[in-house]
Amino acid sequence: MQNTRPILAWETLLDVDSASGSDVAGPLRDRVENALRRAIDEGRLSPGAAVPPSRTLAETLGVSRWVVTEAYGQLVAEGVLEARTGSATRVAERQEMPEATRGIENPVPRDPAPASAPPIRYDLRPGIPDLRATPRSRWAAALRAGLADLPDRELAAAHPSGYAPAREAVAAYLSRSRHAVADATRITITHGATDGMGLLARELHRRGHRTILVEDPSWPRLRIVAEDNGLRPIPVPVDGDGIDTGQLRSLTSGTGARATLVTPAHQFPLGAALAPARREELVRWARDHDALVIEDDYDAEFRYDRRPVPALQRLAPDRVALIGSLSKSVSPALGLGWMLLPPDIAPAPSPSTPSLIDQAALAHFVTQGDFERHLRASRTRFRRRRQRLLDALTIELPELSVAGISAGMHLVLTLPSHVPASAVVDAGASEGLALTSLRRYTDATDRPDALVLGYGDLDDALVEEAVARLAALVR
Amino acid sequence: MQNTRPILAWETLLDVDSASGSDVAGPLRDRVENALRRAIDEGRLSPGAAVPPSRTLAETLGVSRWVVTEAYGQLVAEGVLEARTGSATRVAERQEMPEATRGIENPVPRDPAPASAPPIRYDLRPGIPDLRATPRSRWAAALRAGLADLPDRELAAAHPSGYAPAREAVAAYLSRSRHAVADATRITITHGATDGMGLLARELHRRGHRTILVEDPSWPRLRIVAEDNGLRPIPVPVDGDGIDTGQLRSLTSGTGARATLVTPAHQFPLGAALAPARREELVRWARDHDALVIEDDYDAEFRYDRRPVPALQRLAPDRVALIGSLSKSVSPALGLGWMLLPPDIAPAPSPSTPSLIDQAALAHFVTQGDFERHLRASRTRFRRRRQRLLDALTIELPELSVAGISAGMHLVLTLPSHVPASAVVDAGASEGLALTSLRRYTDATDRPDALVLGYGDLDDALVEEAVARLAALVR
Repeated sequence: MQNTRPILAWETLLDVDSASGSDVAGPLRDRVENALRRAIDEGRLSPGAAVPPSRTLAETLGVSRWVVTEAYGQLVAEGVLEARTGSATRVAERQEMPEATRGIENPVPRDPAPASAPPIRYDLRPGIPDLRATPRSRWAAALRAGLADLPDRELAAAHPSGYAPAREAVAAYLSRSRHAVADATRITITHGATDGMGLLARELHRRGHRTILVEDPSWPRLRIVAEDNGLRPIPVPVDGDGIDTGQLRSLTSGTGARATLVTPAHQFPLGAALAPARREELVRWARDHDALVIEDDYDAEFRYDRRPVPALQRLAPDRVALIGSLSKSVSPALGLGWMLLPPDIAPAPSPSTPSLIDQAALAHFVTQGDFERHLRASRTRFRRRRQRLLDALTIELPELSVAGISAGMHLVLTLPSHVPASAVVDAGASEGLALTSLRRYTDATDRPDALVLGYGDLDDALVEEAVARLAALVR
Repeated sequence: MQNTRPILAWETLLDVDSASGSDVAGPLRDRVENALRRAIDEGRLSPGAAVPPSRTLAETLGVSRWVVTEAYGQLVAEGVLEARTGSATRVAERQEMPEATRGIENPVPRDPAPASAPPIRYDLRPGIPDLRATPRSRWAAALRAGLADLPDRELAAAHPSGYAPAREAVAAYLSRSRHAVADATRITITHGATDGMGLLARELHRRGHRTILVEDPSWPRLRIVAEDNGLRPIPVPVDGDGIDTGQLRSLTSGTGARATLVTPAHQFPLGAALAPARREELVRWARDHDALVIEDDYDAEFRYDRRPVPALQRLAPDRVALIGSLSKSVSPALGLGWMLLPPDIAPAPSPSTPSLIDQAALAHFVTQGDFERHLRASRTRFRRRRQRLLDALTIELPELSVAGISAGMHLVLTLPSHVPASAVVDAGASEGLALTSLRRYTDATDRPDALVLGYGDLDDALVEEAVARLAALVR
């Protein structure tokens, strides 16, 4: 019953879409996703038909490969496509999910997860803080104090860049703790780093930018939101000294890109600190090309072998926009972050600025010292946990190498060449061990298979058990 | 020194912009605003030069007049343009504001307000609840309870349409109190009605919509966010029975528009309830044209002469998307709202879903009955205040007519034909009396001048004093 010859000319996939009137906007990955869905619904792609490899389809359509992998990922998550390791991705034989619930139930978590997977017991996901150590009572106190302090007249006033006390508190924190050049007038309070990246991308697009240089590998959500706002991400390789600034320069000549998104304090996911010479070279590049550097300062506070490296922003406050949030340092549930912007960048304000009460709480949390107390406590906890994880890895998997400076909440474990990361990840999921392949963060195929092990939310009591299970899977 | 002959071909204003690479996106009003700014900066528009009437420029550029009035309004607020009543808007003689701070300080409140105006003493702004009656302690309790109840595992989980308990609470409230056909799977928790409108507009655009029929007059922010997301608003006249469904049909034939944004329970700002025959006609229109009705249910709870009219959504759950929020019923500081969607509409999730803690608080606030208790208390307070305001108007301005059903938080006061609303608004601002002209909500010139008087935040003790001052201004 299988028809493996799709009656679809792939290069017309997006034409199909624009013929229906969608001429300009909408995230590209949604357009690809919907065009595929439509092709399947209309029978132009039959059950069992193979879709092209993502790289091939991306080239055919003239979009970045991320667009295609994200679209495929979503359709796999919905059961519209089926992915099997070592085989082509195909149109599922049966489409069971009713049309109505598709988008509603499945949208954000674009990581396809087997529906039958047990709950996570050993949480090795990167980018998640210690959920058990959420400072609930301090945050509740900050909320109460913030709410009590808010004058009536502020409740309905416009706060386009944020509530002034919150902006002042964040500016003071960034000056004090990140050695940034900050004052409240340059701070915007956001819903988080993703929100900040979206606002910045929109502003860059308005100024004529159409591309952005991003680290490869890197955290996908920020480059996806850049792409959703009209900036095509151009990958720049990362090595043990951080982003390769030589490649950055050559890619600039080739593409005219004048913006870059980097993680100088602690590269995500490879874990390098940007080398001092490269920090300077990055700033020089920005000056030479009238360019903007977006510094994603996501976990810079967590350094265990020395004081945290000052923010890159300090070197060139007129060229660097720093984005940060409480999501990875306190809790993703807070939905709060900030941007520190150069004086000539003023993005249009978000149509949905964060709750004023939350912003007042943020002001209290920072000015009362709760934020930095929480950071210090987390630093101690994560340092110990990292060491324990390293010790366990040395015992259980002594032959494997671990990368990443003594910092943050994750490290990279390179796998033996005969062990595919995807198989380990799948096997882990089926026994409650949440693992992440380095491939999730890159399209490059020249890197050895590796796992990005996050220990932010790993239960201290389960470190050795988690590593023993991991070792069993690897062997 | 005045050069009133601008050396600018107005029709090239947006071409200028697209030449610099901005081919598709960015809100239109920003593009117009920036093109004007650039023309001034580059000397193509000299100090003192008149800009065309907004209607003329809108026609020249092929954009809606709102786009131009918003752009002008912003530039006036920044001091780049100068508006004088009864005269052309001109380029300001001196540009004092440094480039760097323009956008940062002035973006959202696009209502030009004289910088020297005293603080508001008599708050007659529409759309603002009683700020003195903000249920601070009940909301603080809800936050505390919400934070305490959130399981660790939920803190980092994806909640693309919102936190399940909040969705359930809102669905139950909408069923119970608005007689909507609601269940949690169709609810999305948003940052407010504007956020909801933005998400819906984006989804409609993705489906090929390029226009939306909007009530004229209407609340500007929602149609602006629709336009920012690619839907050109087409005004449909409103009369004493609400939106004119006959005109809706003819405009549909002319434009192919298949979406409309309406306020059936209490038209904003004219204050009509949509007549029963028109409610049915609106639904018939939606079925005939495979169209979507967006029901802005902004203050439907506040009805003083009878029980609130059920949501239009009840008549056609498959054709009506209801958007609501706590902004006008509890506080704009909360930054929370919801959408109730037809089964076949599933917008892409927002990149910044509301704080999980706020959503957990919303769930508590609603399920503990605090929300509906607050609504009942507000209803009593607003009914009394409205009557007091009407009494004072009858005494002080007996010759003027007042429009609007016994509902909501505002009414419309028609001015004598020789009294321009703009002059009354300006004079009011200079003595702490915050007034709003009906013209703010419409481009139509065939309506008599009127004021939209909001009494949500008007101090009860100052009602008579406010009306006496207003009467003095009108005379």
